Amino acid sequence: MKAVLFYGKEDLRIEQIEEPQLRPGTVKIKPAYNGICGSDLHLYEDGPIPPAPTAEKPHPISGETLPVVLGHEFSGVVEELGDDVEGLSVGDSVVVEPLMVDGTCPACQKGAYNLCEKMGFIGISGRGGGLSEHIVVERCWVHPVGEMPLDQAAMIEPLSVAVHTVKHARAQSGQTAVIGGAGPIGLLVAAVLKAQGVKTIVSEVSKGRREMAASTGVADVVVDPTSEDLNAVVASHTGGAGAELAFDAAGVGFVMDQLLEVLGAGGRLEVVAIHSKPVQLDITAQLTMQDREMGSSVGYANDHADAIELVQRGKVNLEPFITSRIRADQIIEEGFKRLITNKDSEVKILVSMS
Amino acid sequence: MKAVLFYGKEDLRIEQIEEPQLRPGTVKIKPAYNGICGSDLHLYEDGPIPPAPTAEKPHPISGETLPVVLGHEFSGVVEELGDDVEGLSVGDSVVVEPLMVDGTCPACQKGAYNLCEKMGFIGISGRGGGLSEHIVVERCWVHPVGEMPLDQAAMIEPLSVAVHTVKHARAQSGQTAVIGGAGPIGLLVAAVLKAQGVKTIVSEVSKGRREMAASTGVADVVVDPTSEDLNAVVASHTGGAGAELAFDAAGVGFVMDQLLEVLGAGGRLEVVAIHSKPVQLDITAQLTMQDREMGSSVGYANDHADAIELVQRGKVNLEPFITSRIRADQIIEEGFKRLITNKDSEVKILVSMS
Repeated sequence: MKAVLFYGKEDLRIEQIEEPQLRPGTVKIKPAYNGICGSDLHLYEDGPIPPAPTAEKPHPISGETLPVVLGHEFSGVVEELGDDVEGLSVGDSVVVEPLMVDGTCPACQKGAYNLCEKMGFIGISGRGGGLSEHIVVERCWVHPVGEMPLDQAAMIEPLSVAVHTVKHARAQSGQTAVIGGAGPIGLLVAAVLKAQGVKTIVSEVSKGRREMAASTGVADVVVDPTSEDLNAVVASHTGGAGAELAFDAAGVGFVMDQLLEVLGAGGRLEVVAIHSKPVQLDITAQLTMQDREMGSSVGYANDHADAIELVQRGKVNLEPFITSRIRADQIIEEGFKRLITNKDSEVKILVSMS
Repeated sequence: MKAVLFYGKEDLRIEQIEEPQLRPGTVKIKPAYNGICGSDLHLYEDGPIPPAPTAEKPHPISGETLPVVLGHEFSGVVEELGDDVEGLSVGDSVVVEPLMVDGTCPACQKGAYNLCEKMGFIGISGRGGGLSEHIVVERCWVHPVGEMPLDQAAMIEPLSVAVHTVKHARAQSGQTAVIGGAGPIGLLVAAVLKAQGVKTIVSEVSKGRREMAASTGVADVVVDPTSEDLNAVVASHTGGAGAELAFDAAGVGFVMDQLLEVLGAGGRLEVVAIHSKPVQLDITAQLTMQDREMGSSVGYANDHADAIELVQRGKVNLEPFITSRIRADQIIEEGFKRLITNKDSEVKILVSMS
């Protein structure tokens, strides 16, 4: 079968590989759409870093080395069911929670399997990926999505990240949240917050992204922090009290500082981005003197069902976030390179194998 | 009447001042015991910083400039009740929640009066203090303590700080907490945690303080982090899972780093100390990759009643933390200087006016 293989830095190849075999407890799926994620972009631009294996060092759970099949944000249709698989039928539309976990480490034991010591991703660490004609996945990672269109379903994975971070932040209806950064995750976090009755103020320097936040309705208010006074805008929308929540979806130190400033008494900053550099924090002024807290989480654990329900109940509309649809053979020019050069207008590019 | 007046850096004087007059809604109290707090020590060593006024700049709520009467951790006996005061009788043992707040700012409006924009402390910012023969306090700040001995009652104020931080940290029975630093606040935090069914591991470099943590029973385990492997100790007491909670009661960057390391998946670091320097934080490694959170709070709001109840129900025993009792005329030599030179053996020094 055909698959997109990641060999290393700037080295993606479409090749014929052996079709995976169904085993008891697994499901064979024909991938439909696969979203390109920021992590895919990092792998492509910078080469393999964990949880990706290298050509020499296998991933501890999959045991595989490079090349691996790429693609972890995908939807598909059930083709075949292994023995002992229940709750699914051939022809079902599904999404895959693309994880591989140890199951015995302390985090897994308490259900926080996103924090597994050996954590791996299907589509990054081995065990196939969404950018192939077929994939075989353990039943526990397969979630049926009912009538949901398969293109939107490909975004359930990043939506689950947003659901997880909003839960971690303990968001409550009636609060006001400031979201710093309106890339794909920032937009989806705003969407989940809106769905939960939180007022959203999106701060973003890019005009295109601000327009997306406004036109999709996930932002109640959009702010350009380079030309507007973010503090004043937040104050005017909160009766001077400041926001209860802020989400750093930018991963930049000065955005964090800006967001801490707009928080009211007892507010919480939630970081939902990777900070590649350490930050300086004035604990006393930025946290202590206002009874504040900050948190950060990674991935998802037991969040896919909630993400699926948000879409099924019409609380979140994923359709406007799909900005391009391409074929696998276009993935470099129309996928990765386009995301790098057109990042203001692209949110999610979906890739299909055929 | 006689009072201990704070004039500025290393300048305390016992002088005769005018006795305060009872007004409607206020209570006249004869202070019994007054604890010396770390903030008092800072004022003495470094001179006035907010919320203390200076000789030129008055506190925004009290309107007073230096000198002010010192003492904010105190117990006493009701001497006289102003008009419209209910729920108290002459002769009652009481403690004072030593605050002055604006009442109209956003924080006050939502009940978080500890975060009041103009925040002041009785005994630091004006309106008298515990180190005087009489004080007149608004009814709302006076809490009856029933049969509680007046010396122990003088520690209700710092105990309320511990109650507030433990609530802010959302501690739950059955969890394990590592407390970094066993000064007065670290010990009281451990005491409140123990009272709530949390297992406590106290990490402290000073032998005297470790002994205090052990002998008072507030630490289930004491660790010297300079000679023992704190991570290994915590792992051995948590089945390898790490602690759910850590409290930084030291206010030092590397202690924070140590404490973040002993946290398990989803753990929370609570800072209950003033960090005089900014800290460097690797958000991704220290928070994100383990779904962690951190928080910090200041003072107390609606916590005195809980602190009083913990002592009345025998859940916290404050007696062993009172390490010295002195008279006001000994306050410099046997109070401040002793706390500076004997900080390993002293926890709380109580001062009485007579």
